This record gives sequence, C-alpha cells and structure tokens, in this order.
Amino acid sequence: MTEKKLLQVLDGARTETPPVWMMRQAGRYLPEYRELRRRAENFLDFCYTPPLAVEAALQPLRRYDFSAAILFSDILVVPDALGQRVWFEEGAGPKLDPVGRSDPLAGLGLDNFHQHLGNVYEAVSWLRARLPADVALIGFAGAPWTVAAYMAEGGSSRDYADVRGWAYNDSEKFQALIDLLVEATAAYLIRQVDAGAEVLQLFDSWAGLLSEAQFRRWSVDPARRIVEAVKAAHPHIPVIGFPRGAGVLYADYAGGTGIDAVSLDASVPLGWAAEHLQSQTVVQGNLDNLLLAAGGEALDEEVGRIVEAFAGGPHIFNLGHGIIPATPPEHVGRVVDLVTRA
Amino acid sequence: MTEKKLLQVLDGARTETPPVWMMRQAGRYLPEYRELRRRAENFLDFCYTPPLAVEAALQPLRRYDFSAAILFSDILVVPDALGQRVWFEEGAGPKLDPVGRSDPLAGLGLDNFHQHLGNVYEAVSWLRARLPADVALIGFAGAPWTVAAYMAEGGSSRDYADVRGWAYNDSEKFQALIDLLVEATAAYLIRQVDAGAEVLQLFDSWAGLLSEAQFRRWSVDPARRIVEAVKAAHPHIPVIGFPRGAGVLYADYAGGTGIDAVSLDASVPLGWAAEHLQSQTVVQGNLDNLLLAAGGEALDEEVGRIVEAFAGGPHIFNLGHGIIPATPPEHVGRVVDLVTRA
Repeated sequence: MTEKKLLQVLDGARTETPPVWMMRQAGRYLPEYRELRRRAENFLDFCYTPPLAVEAALQPLRRYDFSAAILFSDILVVPDALGQRVWFEEGAGPKLDPVGRSDPLAGLGLDNFHQHLGNVYEAVSWLRARLPADVALIGFAGAPWTVAAYMAEGGSSRDYADVRGWAYNDSEKFQALIDLLVEATAAYLIRQVDAGAEVLQLFDSWAGLLSEAQFRRWSVDPARRIVEAVKAAHPHIPVIGFPRGAGVLYADYAGGTGIDAVSLDASVPLGWAAEHLQSQTVVQGNLDNLLLAAGGEALDEEVGRIVEAFAGGPHIFNLGHGIIPATPPEHVGRVVDLVTRA
Repeated sequence: MTEKKLLQVLDGARTETPPVWMMRQAGRYLPEYRELRRRAENFLDFCYTPPLAVEAALQPLRRYDFSAAILFSDILVVPDALGQRVWFEEGAGPKLDPVGRSDPLAGLGLDNFHQHLGNVYEAVSWLRARLPADVALIGFAGAPWTVAAYMAEGGSSRDYADVRGWAYNDSEKFQALIDLLVEATAAYLIRQVDAGAEVLQLFDSWAGLLSEAQFRRWSVDPARRIVEAVKAAHPHIPVIGFPRGAGVLYADYAGGTGIDAVSLDASVPLGWAAEHLQSQTVVQGNLDNLLLAAGGEALDEEVGRIVEAFAGGPHIFNLGHGIIPATPPEHVGRVVDLVTRA
C-alpha cells in the first residue's frame, strides 16, 4: 500500500489522523516565497519557469508536515494557452482581453495548447521526482464556469453579473465556450497525470453565484464531463471538486459529477456535510482561512471541532479557501501539529 | 380580513396565487426613477426628502400589480444616524469613514438617532397614506453584520476579509459594535412600524461570507435579538429575514431567529427549500435577477417552476437579489402577470 496518506483516504482506507494540506500553502504568506517571487518579473513567467514553480511548491513542505504538494500555477494558464491575452497587474489581480460576445471562440483554439503548457507539465514531473515518499502530488485546473467568468469579464469582478447575464442571454454561444473549456481542461489534467500528478483538484471558485438550474448546467455538467474524460484516460486518478459557495447544491455536485471528493468552503455546516456529503464521498475542508490568520484559542478549538465532526468517515483536512498573505506562518504549523498528532 | 395578500400569507392564510413584490422594484431600471433622481444632488439627500422617497416607492405601483411597496431608503442611514460619515460616490457605491479597530464606538451613539431619521419615518407615514388598499407597506433595515461590514471596511469590498478578520481578532470589540447596531436597528424598525410599516425586512447581504460558527454569532443571534425587541413593541408585526448566500445555514436562520419568513437567494434549490424551510416558515423568492434582466422563454419557465415548487405552502414571489439597472421594465410586468394570473 502507498505510504501517502492522502491517496489512502481517497482510496477508501481509514487513517488514524486525516491527511492535511492547505489551499495556497505555497505563496505570499511565506517570506521565502516572497523572496523567490522576485526572480521573475511577471507572475505567469514565474508559473512557466519550472525551477521557480517547483521551488515554490516545495517550500511549505520544508516547514510543515503536509500530506500533499500542489502544482504551483494559476487557473488562467488555460485561457493563456488557448490564445487569449492574460496578464497580471500588481495589486489588481488578473487581466484578460475579454472574449467577444458575438464570437467568443475567435482566436482561441487547442492548436498550440500542450506546447504552450509544456513547462507546466515539466514542473509536474520535476516536482514529483523531488517529493518525499509520503507526500502526494496534486495537479489542478480551474473549472470551466470559473475560467469562462474570467475570460468573459476580462478579470475579477464583484459578482460576475456580466457573464451570468450573457449565459442567460445567449446560452448557445456561452455553451460553446464552456465546451471548449471542458475539452481543454480535460486534456490539461490528463497531461498533468501523465507527468506525475497523483490527485487532481478542479477549482470552481464562482460556482456559488449560480442559480440552481445554472449551477447544474455550468458547474455540475462540465465537471461530470471532465471527470469522465480524465477517468477514461486514467481510471484510478482521484479527482477533488471545489464548487465554492455551492451551499445546499454541494449535494448535487457530489452526487452528479462522479467526483471522488468535495472541498468545502467554511460556510458549509459540519453536521450537514457529515450527514449528506461524507456519506457518499470524501470531504475536504473546511477551516475558515481568516481564523487561520487570526490564530489563538478559537483556532485550536475550531480545528478540533472539524476533525471531530468528520472523524466518522473519510476526511482530508484543509481550509475553506486559500491561505491569505497576512497569515503568520506559525499558525499554519500549529494547525498541522494539531491535526497530525494522534 | 385584510385585503392585502402579503399580510394574509404572512398570517398563515392560503391565497390562490402568491403575493409578489421585487427587491429594488423602485430604482434605476425605471426611466421615471432616473428622472426623479436628478432632483437631489446626492443619494442620501434623496432618501431623506420625503416627497422624493415616497414618489420613488410609488412609481413601480403605477406600472405593476405588486402586493407591496417598500420604503425607499438605504441600509446605511443607520450608521449615518449613529454619527459615522457616510456618502455615495457616483459609480463607486457607498463610502464611510471606517470605524477604528481600537475604539469602534468612538463618535457613535443614539443621542440624535431618531431625530436624524425623522424624515424617514415621515416618508413611511406619507407612503402608507398613499397606498392602494390592497398593497402592504414594507419597512426595512440592514442586519447588524452587513451594516458593520460596511462600517468597518469603509464601503463595499470584494470579500469583506478585513472585517471578518477583525471579528476573529478582537471579537469583544466587534461584539460591542454589533450590540450597538442591534439596539439601533430594533429602535429604527419599531419607529417604522409606529409610522405605518406593516411588514419588516432585515437585509443581511453578506451573511454568506461567514463560517458556520460566525454565522450563528453575527447573523442569527443579532437577528433573533432584533426580532425579539421589535415583537415586544409590536407583537403582530411580521419580519422577513434575508441572510443572502447562507446556503445550508438558511435552516438555522429560519429556526433560530424567530423570523416569520426567509427571503431566498437564487442559489437555494427549490426542492430543498420547500422541504426544509417552507415546512417551518414562509419562504420568499427566488428568481435570479439576471434571468429577469435577460427575459425570454427561460424566464417564463423559471417563474412557473418557482410558483409550482412552492405551491404547497406559504410563498411570497420575489427575486433572489435586487432588480439590476439594465432590466427592461417590461420583463418585470411579464413576471407579475405570470405570477398573479390564476
């Protein structure tokens, strides 16, 4: 059997304590990351430079006893590789030349896709070769709805009203964009597994903005098709889905996508998740990232509450959302200690 | 028995078709509102001028067969009346001088509170006197968590991470701010009922950002205390709560606040709400405001689906969030027709 606790749990085994990793465990809260980041001018170049991306992913493992490393990259490498112009402005987040509403696929295509992402696959291979024997490697991608939201709005937005309106006004054209992203994302994830990824996570960060019917169409259905395609190529690869903010619809997602685990945001109540989600799938989560940043007794208590609530079934300890830059690194260590001590 | 269908349903009666009103039914999507709005330079002045606020609230009733009018105002009149500086910048939303973290109550107090809000109470009286006999008058306030979020951040924010962090880091001081808001909000709502409001709605727009424990502390508990205080003064006044984005925690809110109805955002699945919420309370909602803006066959179908899903219990037809400015007014009329025809 594998020494990797994360894979054990995803394979249905029970472990004495849950595996633990944290979204954005590599990143700006670590001084060594901020130092490393200076070696590339822009963020996409950083992601596309294997020695830098690999080093960033390894940094947290030198500090903490995490059960997994995750590829250091960004979900917007997919539109970048499809031919859309993507750039990052300091402090302003990602920017994209928004896709046209009348012909959203203009200028986009899969022709140079894998070539463009070659360095990402290389980073996956390098990272896999450098991991301790008990640490699993997670590859990832953005889910089509979330990536399409950035592609349509040209960046972040408060409520993505523009793209949500478009999806209603011209659902056929929006469907065409989603279909392209389903194909690209599946191909991207398959290549990550080819290169050495042992688990995949699909981030649907803006799933919570969708109404029930739209959630089924733009979040559940694309995830199902991606899982199907990935599993056709790699039948045993576990896939974690993160439809952030899905609320009650987490149950539809867990039941309707064929996913192996659902990652829970901090608003999902533990008792409900244990009863309605953990009964059918592995649950991952869901410590509030702002409580992690705050620390103190309340943090210790909440870690205990989460571990206990999910002790009756398969559980991967994680946050409800990524580590924020203001987080004191020692808080991360404290949580890992609490989770991993028997 | 009252002719007002909204009051009938809130009183437990069955009606042939559900009462219907829409959040932001008065506002920028109406050309006559945009015309009227020019008569005051800034938005708070507009709210504080009874002839303007009353006219704004009446405008949609001349077009549509709504079951209710809602006071035309803003949730930030409460911090304004407590002594915080609040202003609105065209296109940038509300701005406030953020409260200090070390002494959040500095400069705030109830001394001039009702005097400052006198024109709002006057607008309520005027409006009540001008309503058709079958139209109910809804008063409203922002919930303490949501208002505190604006007060602490100094305006809108993408994820209110700053105030959420503060609530963890110094929960005692944050509690003091919430306590002041509980007191002020209850007093404000009681005066609105004194002036003629027949139903109250409490808007907790940012409730969905809270973790389970924080939701109970900052959303459910303050709402419970406000409902208790309001009902001590006006035992029969119905209160609608809107913890937007609460997901599974809607059930906790419905069960834990003493509220008479819950307003559902568009992400709440109809089947779940009918089973878990409508069994214990009145439900209000939850058409996607972006589908209302888009219109077409999909809009008609969704209206039918919502009416049917909630036909087995008490239901107030509404949106999941306010009408957006780009909404064609005829779409609103279409929905009201669909809902009100037997």
